[in-house]
Amino acid sequence: MIHSSAIIATSAKLGKDEHIGPFSIIHDNVEIGDNSIVESYCELGYPTPLAGNRQLVIGQNSLIRSHSIFYQGSVFGEGLKTGHHVTVRENVKAGNGLQLGTLNDLQGDCVIGEYVRTHSNVHIGKKSKIGNYVWIFPYVVLTNDPHPPSNVLRGVTVEDFAVIATMSVILPGVTVGTGSLIAAHSSVSKDVEAGMVVRGAPAKPVCKTSDIKLKDGTNRVAYPWTSHFHRGYPQNIVDTWKSNEIPL
Amino acid sequence: MIHSSAIIATSAKLGKDEHIGPFSIIHDNVEIGDNSIVESYCELGYPTPLAGNRQLVIGQNSLIRSHSIFYQGSVFGEGLKTGHHVTVRENVKAGNGLQLGTLNDLQGDCVIGEYVRTHSNVHIGKKSKIGNYVWIFPYVVLTNDPHPPSNVLRGVTVEDFAVIATMSVILPGVTVGTGSLIAAHSSVSKDVEAGMVVRGAPAKPVCKTSDIKLKDGTNRVAYPWTSHFHRGYPQNIVDTWKSNEIPL
Amino acid sequence: MIHSSAIIATSAKLGKDEHIGPFSIIHDNVEIGDNSIVESYCELGYPTPLAGNRQLVIGQNSLIRSHSIFYQGSVFGEGLKTGHHVTVRENVKAGNGLQLGTLNDLQGDCVIGEYVRTHSNVHIGKKSKIGNYVWIFPYVVLTNDPHPPSNVLRGVTVEDFAVIATMSVILPGVTVGTGSLIAAHSSVSKDVEAGMVVRGAPAKPVCKTSDIKLKDGTNRVAYPWTSHFHRGYPQNIVDTWKSNEIPL
Repeated sequence: MIHSSAIIATSAKLGKDEHIGPFSIIHDNVEIGDNSIVESYCELGYPTPLAGNRQLVIGQNSLIRSHSIFYQGSVFGEGLKTGHHVTVRENVKAGNGLQLGTLNDLQGDCVIGEYVRTHSNVHIGKKSKIGNYVWIFPYVVLTNDPHPPSNVLRGVTVEDFAVIATMSVILPGVTVGTGSLIAAHSSVSKDVEAGMVVRGAPAKPVCKTSDIKLKDGTNRVAYPWTSHFHRGYPQNIVDTWKSNEIPL
Repeated sequence: MIHSSAIIATSAKLGKDEHIGPFSIIHDNVEIGDNSIVESYCELGYPTPLAGNRQLVIGQNSLIRSHSIFYQGSVFGEGLKTGHHVTVRENVKAGNGLQLGTLNDLQGDCVIGEYVRTHSNVHIGKKSKIGNYVWIFPYVVLTNDPHPPSNVLRGVTVEDFAVIATMSVILPGVTVGTGSLIAAHSSVSKDVEAGMVVRGAPAKPVCKTSDIKLKDGTNRVAYPWTSHFHRGYPQNIVDTWKSNEIPL
Repeated sequence: MIHSSAIIATSAKLGKDEHIGPFSIIHDNVEIGDNSIVESYCELGYPTPLAGNRQLVIGQNSLIRSHSIFYQGSVFGEGLKTGHHVTVRENVKAGNGLQLGTLNDLQGDCVIGEYVRTHSNVHIGKKSKIGNYVWIFPYVVLTNDPHPPSNVLRGVTVEDFAVIATMSVILPGVTVGTGSLIAAHSSVSKDVEAGMVVRGAPAKPVCKTSDIKLKDGTNRVAYPWTSHFHRGYPQNIVDTWKSNEIPL
């Protein structure tokens, strides 16, 4: 169903069973997969010369919540879900199952793997490279300029299964290793080794993630988090986690 | 006055002398008290299965500023005032006189007392418990997950008259005591005693709030703040503050 | 072109070659210079008693991106550019060439010089004084209340060419000196000398800005940044930088 107040360019490519909410705008450079929902007050395919003539492509079964803006020139896999008031600029390439929280701000020119999840108010700078199954929590900023302002952009790399907790800043060029944990309110200026916990400003190693126990009355380990947290992931992904050792 | 471009569900319950601004959407699960204003681009009663069939209830004399979203299943007292671009999810129960700043993000499942005020860009995680006359300043995050991501949620408790200054993170399960002050840019990992000032990351006690003098040329104490700051509170509340000793 | 869905007050003063996007609202207290663009879902001239009857004035060749709100009573020079979801309250006086990032929140009652640039999610408190050619990066907050909540407002002063990096808080009354650099994730409680780099919480002097080299393979200095970064500034401004010694 397309609401009568929505403004849809005639050459926009909408799939089957699409829902476009009130007061939303779909530009002509947009292709949306079947069975997707675009809520109210959204603007998709926002034109920019920085994207050449490339389209905005959104995979099937996606949900874009209200007041969100997507520029042209980005490509998302299936099952994209966003919160409200999200801004996503040009030249983002993201895999399936991406979830972006409310008030996220993706600056564009970045690569995001499979089933990445960000919580509210995350800022992803240009040139970021984010692996698979990564978690980023509220008010985290991935930076890129080692001496702002300059034309030198050194993006952050976040490897698979890594977790960045609330209000941490990752400084330019830093690699956050596989399955590592950045504690809340940290400022990370050096590469973080796989499976390590770092904390503070500047962040320093504290312990291994495997040293942390679940505070649920059991004595189970909290990390790798894939050992106990499966909500919202497809069963075949969870089966992979269970059958393979997580590479930590 | 209901603007002609607003979309109002036929079963929404609007009070007398209601103002609904241009391009706003009121779903059927909504009840708004008399003499309230909903500005432009707002969406009220956003449906979610997480709220059962419960309504969004907003008390009389309320003001919801533009671009704000309220989910169904929350209940607010009289005189709610919000800034712009606010998001409030399901299952919030709040008292009278709540003021929420621009860009606030309430994740739902939380309890808020009487005359609480938040400034811009405050993030209140699920399971938070906020008392009466609390102040929360910009870019503060109340967290809840002790080892993210997990299903263990330990909300933050903020007691009456407490003040949390700019860009502080309150870690899961922490209690911020009555009338205490969290200095700016702190990360609070332990309970804060009533009437104490804490600062830093991790935050440590600095002094008593009663040690801080007002920087207004007088030699008056700055805390309890109720001794000098009354703007916007009803006179009967202020009279209570004056007649009773504030419990610090 | 004014979109047919936009709501324009009859007494609003629009210039020549104006573009007003879909679903935007222009109140009667607004004057916009020639050749400006107001995108979709914007509200300009939002009425407030705090502005008296003063207008919102926006200079020519300006671009206000979608979902932004400007209150009445502020005055902007030519070439204002904003990101999305920006909120600007009353009584801001800003020079030419101001660029405000997405999700900025200007609280009003502040003065901003020429060609200032803020990145995403910057919060500028009341009584801030910002000089010329200043840069402010994401999630920075300029505060004003030395013992919140109170009626004592001591704004922050940021002098010409200064740079404040990501997620720093500038505490009330602090002066950030000419050409200084506040490193990311700092909390600045004391005045910062011209040309110095400070870092940490509380922030302490680290080195001179002139000690930092560009990480671009050359051995050039990174500061003053005007020696190598000119993107988006008018040639006559850059010529001034080149011909005069920057006062650091």
